[in-house]
Amino acid sequence: MLIRRIRKTPLERLSLARNCTLGPLNKPIATIKPGETVEVETWDASANTVKPGQTPKDARRKGVQIYENPVTGPIHVEGAQSGDVLKIEVITITLPRIGWTSARTRFSEIDGWLQLPSPPTKFSRIRKGKIVYVLSDGRTIEVPVEPLIGTIGVSPAYEAIATITPGRHGGNMDVPDVCVGNTLYLPVAVEGALLGLGDVHAAQGDGEICGTAVEVCSMVSKVTLKIELEKHKKLDWPRIESKDEIMTVCSARPLEDAARLAFLELMKWLETDYGFERYDAYAFLSIAARARIAQIVNPLFTVVAKLPRKMLPRTEVISKA
Amino acid sequence: MLIRRIRKTPLERLSLARNCTLGPLNKPIATIKPGETVEVETWDASANTVKPGQTPKDARRKGVQIYENPVTGPIHVEGAQSGDVLKIEVITITLPRIGWTSARTRFSEIDGWLQLPSPPTKFSRIRKGKIVYVLSDGRTIEVPVEPLIGTIGVSPAYEAIATITPGRHGGNMDVPDVCVGNTLYLPVAVEGALLGLGDVHAAQGDGEICGTAVEVCSMVSKVTLKIELEKHKKLDWPRIESKDEIMTVCSARPLEDAARLAFLELMKWLETDYGFERYDAYAFLSIAARARIAQIVNPLFTVVAKLPRKMLPRTEVISKA
Amino acid sequence: MLIRRIRKTPLERLSLARNCTLGPLNKPIATIKPGETVEVETWDASANTVKPGQTPKDARRKGVQIYENPVTGPIHVEGAQSGDVLKIEVITITLPRIGWTSARTRFSEIDGWLQLPSPPTKFSRIRKGKIVYVLSDGRTIEVPVEPLIGTIGVSPAYEAIATITPGRHGGNMDVPDVCVGNTLYLPVAVEGALLGLGDVHAAQGDGEICGTAVEVCSMVSKVTLKIELEKHKKLDWPRIESKDEIMTVCSARPLEDAARLAFLELMKWLETDYGFERYDAYAFLSIAARARIAQIVNPLFTVVAKLPRKMLPRTEVISKA
Amino acid sequence: MLIRRIRKTPLERLSLARNCTLGPLNKPIATIKPGETVEVETWDASANTVKPGQTPKDARRKGVQIYENPVTGPIHVEGAQSGDVLKIEVITITLPRIGWTSARTRFSEIDGWLQLPSPPTKFSRIRKGKIVYVLSDGRTIEVPVEPLIGTIGVSPAYEAIATITPGRHGGNMDVPDVCVGNTLYLPVAVEGALLGLGDVHAAQGDGEICGTAVEVCSMVSKVTLKIELEKHKKLDWPRIESKDEIMTVCSARPLEDAARLAFLELMKWLETDYGFERYDAYAFLSIAARARIAQIVNPLFTVVAKLPRKMLPRTEVISKA
Repeated sequence: MLIRRIRKTPLERLSLARNCTLGPLNKPIATIKPGETVEVETWDASANTVKPGQTPKDARRKGVQIYENPVTGPIHVEGAQSGDVLKIEVITITLPRIGWTSARTRFSEIDGWLQLPSPPTKFSRIRKGKIVYVLSDGRTIEVPVEPLIGTIGVSPAYEAIATITPGRHGGNMDVPDVCVGNTLYLPVAVEGALLGLGDVHAAQGDGEICGTAVEVCSMVSKVTLKIELEKHKKLDWPRIESKDEIMTVCSARPLEDAARLAFLELMKWLETDYGFERYDAYAFLSIAARARIAQIVNPLFTVVAKLPRKMLPRTEVISKA
Repeated sequence: MLIRRIRKTPLERLSLARNCTLGPLNKPIATIKPGETVEVETWDASANTVKPGQTPKDARRKGVQIYENPVTGPIHVEGAQSGDVLKIEVITITLPRIGWTSARTRFSEIDGWLQLPSPPTKFSRIRKGKIVYVLSDGRTIEVPVEPLIGTIGVSPAYEAIATITPGRHGGNMDVPDVCVGNTLYLPVAVEGALLGLGDVHAAQGDGEICGTAVEVCSMVSKVTLKIELEKHKKLDWPRIESKDEIMTVCSARPLEDAARLAFLELMKWLETDYGFERYDAYAFLSIAARARIAQIVNPLFTVVAKLPRKMLPRTEVISKA
Repeated sequence: MLIRRIRKTPLERLSLARNCTLGPLNKPIATIKPGETVEVETWDASANTVKPGQTPKDARRKGVQIYENPVTGPIHVEGAQSGDVLKIEVITITLPRIGWTSARTRFSEIDGWLQLPSPPTKFSRIRKGKIVYVLSDGRTIEVPVEPLIGTIGVSPAYEAIATITPGRHGGNMDVPDVCVGNTLYLPVAVEGALLGLGDVHAAQGDGEICGTAVEVCSMVSKVTLKIELEKHKKLDWPRIESKDEIMTVCSARPLEDAARLAFLELMKWLETDYGFERYDAYAFLSIAARARIAQIVNPLFTVVAKLPRKMLPRTEVISKA
Repeated sequence: MLIRRIRKTPLERLSLARNCTLGPLNKPIATIKPGETVEVETWDASANTVKPGQTPKDARRKGVQIYENPVTGPIHVEGAQSGDVLKIEVITITLPRIGWTSARTRFSEIDGWLQLPSPPTKFSRIRKGKIVYVLSDGRTIEVPVEPLIGTIGVSPAYEAIATITPGRHGGNMDVPDVCVGNTLYLPVAVEGALLGLGDVHAAQGDGEICGTAVEVCSMVSKVTLKIELEKHKKLDWPRIESKDEIMTVCSARPLEDAARLAFLELMKWLETDYGFERYDAYAFLSIAARARIAQIVNPLFTVVAKLPRKMLPRTEVISKA
């Protein structure tokens, strides 16, 4: 299989607007055909300013221009139109040997509740499938490596949304289910879709409560994706499929609105694809759905609603028409 | 082992206040010693007014007095004082062969968003570890039986809180982790603790979005609990331990406040019992915590924050004092 | 006019439950007839533990039992039944010459956002219709005295709700419109209504953001009320009438839910009393309503929705039946 | 005084992105000097598709391209840089003789709570300072004309934010205090500021609960503004000054976050310009602030926090440095 490689454009070549938004006026850095597999180099959320020996504070002190959560893109997908769906299979995620975690003030508000002083940036080694988290007293804890793409999205119809923000277009959803083996579906809103991605995490807790997960240094971080196009298949919000589950991903504030939207999207999925009556879907999810709080730290909060495939009806629905 | 049986008091013998609140002025129906195992008969959320052939609407039409989510109790635990913790191990949950699910208007607001008409009550058979959910078109789906105690709590310090409401005292948390094999910890606020419980579900989806789960007819529903007392161990909110996880349970609105509180309680747990510095706990949970949206339909919403035991530090902390 | 005087019961004579909840099991301290005018002595929110020379911190240090926001009551109103409405006209509010303001941690969360250190308690003189607020640098600001009853409510149907909490039953609404000259309507839920009140403020900002207003020392604080009964006039939430406005008062979290409920109640009022079609009421309030954020610091937040009387239709509606 | 006239560009000449966002990549339609007075023609929120004889539904049925809440702009202000403040005095607002009000589904959620059917669009005559609102039964109500500019904002630093959304940059704040005689301050984020405005309302209720106010047909709607530049005066959010009050305007979800931010900005104002200690500002606003719920229907909700000028300290502060 021939894999097209898409390099990061050096950030200083592009404006802040072009690096740090997903929008219709951003000029593509590459064009691909539906069905292609691409390998994409990705930035971390700090645009490579945080690394061993340099914390976010150091970077700011040195007057380094901070590109907040830049993405690699936009990637133009030939033939993609508003009303289509981009189908993105995550094939591989390549990680460096080190990750960082740094609490940002007032992200989840928990720091305010705790009256926490400004905390240090933690660097953790990543090796043999484990992240080695070192406590202040020297003890270590091993956390399994479960890599995910934190930010992946297409252009909205006419806004240019900051890459720090999640939404209907994808973006900074920080969903652990955007991982190797799973397939993400994004609603296309403009010609060419204009896909951008970045912000790989080696692992992430539900809620991502301090504002960062195990962020990975961007020098060697890259992902391989197979990108296909489903014509004329309207979606309102991103969806994910894994071997075992179907999932909807919605972002809003307050958090219950994100949850309500995600359950509502899952109901609509059961109606259109599995022949449920609306009420059946409503009551059934009340006894069978699962949910994940992806994050409560970005400008909108993200919830994933899930249904195990084994709880989908086994009998076919004969066309409702 | 001698097991003490605690029967439900017929509802008409008690006032609404005594059946449907947890509070310090409610007179105990039984007194037990710490360490005892008890078998408690429980009411369902409809106080047995919903059963095959009778829906909530029918019950209301007949003018039946509705006791909303009554509990069996209060059970006085000898020696329990404010500042102690009640440790409750769930040994067994006995289910009837039928359960019901009924959407309530404006519970999760999703019905308003959907402009859903008044939906029917669903009855589902429960057999051989499966709940058989029947769709409107006759197809069936099997959902695994995973029974839980929806409502279990002690008396607050001076309020009498409706049994429909969750809080620091426990109450209507609707948490699937209050299940057989797990241990629940509740902060005692008044002499004797004054435990009450009910509202067993045969299974429940995260969010419990239509307002009910698989509610079980109360005629044959009962639970066996081992109840112990931990003296002088102050808790601010309920906690749960399973074989694999430690968990905190908090209830608030909006949902992010419930999540923030639950993560904060988990941080405090790591600090006091596992020797974490505050900041270490904060950043560590950001990469390792798990969370469950228990319900978004009761007067306060409930989130469970979790940490896998295998991610707790293996080295002992030498006393911090 | 003969005015009945209702004294505060010394707090130590009653349990915490009886002083600090509104509930059906609390025994009346007085019984009045509908139409009577009563003069009621009131406690402040600190139960008289804060006074010149003693801050809340001092009181706690001395081990003084803190009764949080105690009320004077319950007052039994003869003939009041569930389904009736208590009509309470505020005739006078008598203030002492000094008030206090003290920030409480994590009340409005603004302190967390600001990382504010524990702040001092402020005492302000009240004289000639002015509150003299003294800044740390010695400058003074005069704030007009606009006294209000912060907490006034009846017993809920079966819960005993803490007097710190507002709700459908009234309670700690902290609404500046509960002031001299205005009339408050509360839905009766139990026999005798069981009215309680306290927590007079000499003035209050919208939001009451630090958790207290100009609280008044309880030694000399009292209010005169004319209390009437409107039979068979169901209300879902408290209402207020002034010479110039009609108002609804709702409490919930998040704050938009309190606002939605208050606007909804105002729509219902226009429908039932002024012959509006539902849609007319909806669109009309969108162009004409006023609202007040009463407080964002109590367990539920309170919004007042208002309509100027001069915007009520002048033509009579002939009975819709 | 020479007044520069700025005409609306016909919408079909510009892309959706250029008509309906405020962003750094939108090309200016005019350039002005600081100190100039400009008269700007404005679009209504429906881009002139709603008019007597045509409702929003009609427009959609005819396949008219809907430009949602387009603005006139961007207007480039010479010399404006990030870190400056744009000072905008509203001199006049010219209204047509007719306005419209149309409920949009799921805007404030109140329609969902009410299960309201799709409601009609209302047209109201505007004459002699009164809006004549006609009820379904033919009765009329007069609402005073109090015109305001619903949408006015500058470009964000790098995002292109939809003109339907409010934020730190201004935008669709729907604040009745942006009215004739008052002065609005907006933080400049990009060179030239790139001001845009539109969405004039003849009057608006607090909350704007049905999603529209008295929207005015855009054919004859225009505003006159005096625009000045304050160099090197960093603001975080919009502010307003009237003859009698100082005001801060913040937008967020949930609504309490908008309120917290607005009160916080007002505290910062008291600290920097009036010599308050932080704690003094906090406690003082708790007894003296006023607040307005501007709207609860846009993508973020807007609160205005206010302090009467007569409650500002009269003594000068000698420089704190």
